[in-house]
Amino acid sequence: MNQPIPPKDIAKRAAGHAAAKLIHDGMLVGLGTGSTAFYFIEALIERCASSNIKISAVATSERSAAQAKAGGIPLYDINKVTTLDITVDGADEIDHQKRMIKGGGGALLREKILASISREMVVIIDKEKLVDQLGIFPLPVEVVPFAHQLTLSRINKLGCHGSFRRKKNGDNTTLNELYVTDNGNYIVDIAFPQGCHSPEQTNNALKSIPGVVETGFFFHLAGRVIVGYPDGHIKIIP
Amino acid sequence: MNQPIPPKDIAKRAAGHAAAKLIHDGMLVGLGTGSTAFYFIEALIERCASSNIKISAVATSERSAAQAKAGGIPLYDINKVTTLDITVDGADEIDHQKRMIKGGGGALLREKILASISREMVVIIDKEKLVDQLGIFPLPVEVVPFAHQLTLSRINKLGCHGSFRRKKNGDNTTLNELYVTDNGNYIVDIAFPQGCHSPEQTNNALKSIPGVVETGFFFHLAGRVIVGYPDGHIKIIP
Repeated sequence: MNQPIPPKDIAKRAAGHAAAKLIHDGMLVGLGTGSTAFYFIEALIERCASSNIKISAVATSERSAAQAKAGGIPLYDINKVTTLDITVDGADEIDHQKRMIKGGGGALLREKILASISREMVVIIDKEKLVDQLGIFPLPVEVVPFAHQLTLSRINKLGCHGSFRRKKNGDNTTLNELYVTDNGNYIVDIAFPQGCHSPEQTNNALKSIPGVVETGFFFHLAGRVIVGYPDGHIKIIP
Repeated sequence: MNQPIPPKDIAKRAAGHAAAKLIHDGMLVGLGTGSTAFYFIEALIERCASSNIKISAVATSERSAAQAKAGGIPLYDINKVTTLDITVDGADEIDHQKRMIKGGGGALLREKILASISREMVVIIDKEKLVDQLGIFPLPVEVVPFAHQLTLSRINKLGCHGSFRRKKNGDNTTLNELYVTDNGNYIVDIAFPQGCHSPEQTNNALKSIPGVVETGFFFHLAGRVIVGYPDGHIKIIP
């Protein structure tokens, strides 16, 4: 017997499948990474197979690239394109101004590059990701390995509580080794015990520290937001 | 017979040797990289050997580290320190507001990290580096390899004229392969045919492009500037 799908996954799947309906023939599509993006890519493959729609795509991770390729979606090298018609990606948190925290999966830089060259970034989330204030989810910040402990102490001097992300075993236990991004950098996860009160100011302060490559704050990038609910219905925030 | 030292090197040596006199017993010193920093490290080694001064240092490159180590200067791991007493480094250009362009040697990120944690950054230059307007020397910008062509095209959309730095042979001929920094990234060298009229604005625009790790603009970092002249005299700009 199949396991029943948990309510959270029903919500994610609803959002991902709704997003696939926004993809039209001839589009060049940016594929996000993560559990909600997985359902989007799943539905996109289905849509292309069952209709006359031909699209091509660029992926933010090896995992999403492999899923799309297995489903017959032609993939482009990111260096061969200058704009994308649409990018569909999840978010770890999004507030009422559509400011987001992303990068829980460690792909924040690639996700930001794709989002920033897309005519529209469609954000797909389950309702738990809608927040009144950003910062309950730790903010990922990508830093270069050189002087990384020093960079961490400078981050913490801003009043942040950062710690390096560590690698995990298959059984999800944490290893001593630091997690390394696709770009060969480390991730500092910043906790905000009271939430983050001024995301723009925090972002600027973080980016002014030499050694910080990128933050997980996404501003002015989200277009439509598709929110999935555990009963399978969705709501689109225009 | 020894080759006579070219006038430019006399100027560089004068500046480097003058900077060594600013180093006092017990100081933790940041060592820059490049031809002028070479003369500083040379004089610093001499000063430590001939007097009772004991110092320790952190280096911005393997080359400077090797030179210091060979001269008996104890080196610290950058991650074991939180501040430096002084950093002495060269510059490719410096204007009357002490804004600089650095990174001709490819070590801009490490140089900026050290400069930014130093109580004072002493800049040592030959007089040719003093400019009325920044931008005659190409501005180096460090970018991640992922989507690097796309990042270049976004840089050029700002009205900049960037091109990737390439590796060089021993005989200084350019190879087809891209130059790779100590951090595993590429360098875009940006030419400003008319000079750079608004360095701060250019810097902000560049840093807002995801994929740009750091620029070679150094603002609010230079302390005293020691200018060397071809006749061997120096001038200190306080």
